[in-house]
Amino acid sequence: METDCLFCKIGSGLIPAKIVYQNEKVIAFLDINPAGTLQGHTLVMPKKHYTSITDCSSEDLAAVMDTIKMIMPAVREISGASGINILRNEGKVAGELIPHLHFHIMPRVEGDGIHFEENRHTASEEELKTTHGKMLDYLKDKI
Amino acid sequence: METDCLFCKIGSGLIPAKIVYQNEKVIAFLDINPAGTLQGHTLVMPKKHYTSITDCSSEDLAAVMDTIKMIMPAVREISGASGINILRNEGKVAGELIPHLHFHIMPRVEGDGIHFEENRHTASEEELKTTHGKMLDYLKDKI
Repeated sequence: METDCLFCKIGSGLIPAKIVYQNEKVIAFLDINPAGTLQGHTLVMPKKHYTSITDCSSEDLAAVMDTIKMIMPAVREISGASGINILRNEGKVAGELIPHLHFHIMPRVEGDGIHFEENRHTASEEELKTTHGKMLDYLKDKI
Repeated sequence: METDCLFCKIGSGLIPAKIVYQNEKVIAFLDINPAGTLQGHTLVMPKKHYTSITDCSSEDLAAVMDTIKMIMPAVREISGASGINILRNEGKVAGELIPHLHFHIMPRVEGDGIHFEENRHTASEEELKTTHGKMLDYLKDKI
C-alpha cells in the first residue's frame, strides 16, 4: 500500500466509498464524479497498488476483468443504459487523476453529453507498413 | 465465427490486417483509422465472436488483457507516447462500429487532438446512496 494514495486507502477501508463489490484482489465502487447523465458510473481496480497495466500481475488483471464482467449488467440494468464504455486512462495526458490502476465502467445513452473526440485519420498503406515494422521489431525478442 | 463479421474474418485470416501478435485465443492488429497523431493505435480482441464482455469467457478475457499488457510497451516505445488510453466501446451509442468485442490501445501525447468530453458532475450523497442501493440490490443474488 502507498500511504499517500487515495485509492489504496479506499481499497484497504481507511477511506469510505460506495463499494458495490470486493474480494481479496479487487474492489469496485461508485465514482463520486460520474460522467454523463445516467446513474452507475463505477470504478474497478486491484487493491494492490499498480500504476500501470504493464506492472499488474496477470492474476490481478484477470480478477479485475472478471469483476467488470460481473458488474456491467448491474450498471446497465439500474441505469437503463443502451451502451457502456470501459475506459482506462494511463498517465496524466490520458486523463488519469489518481495514479492507481483503475478502470471506468460508464453507462451510455443517446444525448448524455459524453463525446470522445478521437481525431482519427485514414492511415496510408505506407504509414501502416512503417508502424507495423516498428511494432514487430520491438516485439520480436519479447514474445 | 460469424460469416458477416469483419473482425471474425480478420481473426481467421480471411481478410488481411497488420497483425502485431496472435495466439490461439487472441489477435492484435493496427487500427487502419488511428486516433490522434502518434503511430501505434492497436486493436486487441478474442478471435471468438463475442458481442459483449458479459458473454466473453474468463479465459478469453484474461488472454485479451495479457495481450494488452504485452503490447502496451511496444505501442509506448515506438510512438513516444506519454500516456495510453485503453478503451472498450460496447454498443453503437458508446462508439462501437464493429460489434465484435475489441479493445483499443491508443497512444497519447500532449496536443494530439484527442479529447474525452465526459460531462461529469459532483454527485450528492443522496444520489450516491440511491445508486449504491440499486447496485447492491441488483447484485445481491448474483455474487
